[in-house]
Amino acid sequence: MYPEHLKLLIEQFRRLPGVGSRSAERYAFQLLDWKEEERQTMAEALSATSANLRHCDECGSLIGPEECHLCGERAIRDRTKLCVVSTAKEVFAIEDTAQYKGLYHVLGGTLSPIDGRGPEQLRFAQLWPRLAHVEEVIVALDSTLEGDATALYIRRELEESPVTVSRLAFGLPSGCSLDLVDESTLTRALTGRRPETSH
Amino acid sequence: MYPEHLKLLIEQFRRLPGVGSRSAERYAFQLLDWKEEERQTMAEALSATSANLRHCDECGSLIGPEECHLCGERAIRDRTKLCVVSTAKEVFAIEDTAQYKGLYHVLGGTLSPIDGRGPEQLRFAQLWPRLAHVEEVIVALDSTLEGDATALYIRRELEESPVTVSRLAFGLPSGCSLDLVDESTLTRALTGRRPETSH
Repeated sequence: MYPEHLKLLIEQFRRLPGVGSRSAERYAFQLLDWKEEERQTMAEALSATSANLRHCDECGSLIGPEECHLCGERAIRDRTKLCVVSTAKEVFAIEDTAQYKGLYHVLGGTLSPIDGRGPEQLRFAQLWPRLAHVEEVIVALDSTLEGDATALYIRRELEESPVTVSRLAFGLPSGCSLDLVDESTLTRALTGRRPETSH
Repeated sequence: MYPEHLKLLIEQFRRLPGVGSRSAERYAFQLLDWKEEERQTMAEALSATSANLRHCDECGSLIGPEECHLCGERAIRDRTKLCVVSTAKEVFAIEDTAQYKGLYHVLGGTLSPIDGRGPEQLRFAQLWPRLAHVEEVIVALDSTLEGDATALYIRRELEESPVTVSRLAFGLPSGCSLDLVDESTLTRALTGRRPETSH
């Protein structure tokens, strides 16, 4: 029913995460209302992506064409701490907190035997050589089965080494009412309870 | 915080309807996981849009590079009926019902004095000359203030002509429970009630 090229546009948008056919249609029709230059700008942005964005060979963070500032800032960053995350997006989230000044290592996913994702599919081979001067590895992974399995794997691999392995705290999210929290979160918040300090 | 090109990609996606910064970020990050060819395919689809999609000069429908099949199918279509819609998307929705075989006319919007959209901003100048052999104009516009104002304008303009002006029926949407329907819909369903026929 739709002209061929409209179908092609809809198909392209459908490949974005969480975009169903209804949304993809809205995006495609909206695109037709754009000025020609506006469509070309978007086309060029997509087309030039690999020339302008890359993953740092060392830490795996998403960076521009220049040197990785997270690996390069030798004077500023605490090289005794290394934070392991699943994807490059999480590096930005942690940087935004301004609470952490150590190094990062992006694994590129979490272990998932069901999906056939073992340690060799992730950036573990690049991780171990980076730990020479590291004193603490902070595991910043999702509180999911895969996140837990990956955290466990890291702890076991580093059992014999002098490196401390820590993990992000589990508990109540900020601004969250107790009765809205699920049982598993509440259990972890209880077992992880800490004495109140007076400061 | 984000690399420049990532910001550019996010900005592009934010321009799509209903896409907030969260979704735009997800789309941009997803794009980075695509293969290079996949990004190029999307870029080319955007870039080639104006060469492959256009609005029919006569009816305003969205068509491919070939002749408009809605205006061209002289043998098949009922040229005594003309359906007025707001946007090209609605032509496809009505065609999908397979209940209508007449002509179409896309106005390109509805009248909205508040937004400064008067009759001269819409495709009215192209509409009147098309009515020479038309017996019925079916106004298929939204049941909104703007849709009502536009329907009223069409009825008034055609008051002196022999053309019958009809409008899509208002009432309960299919599969809708009475207690979920708003007062205005119920009022229109009541005033528009029809005798039950036995067939």
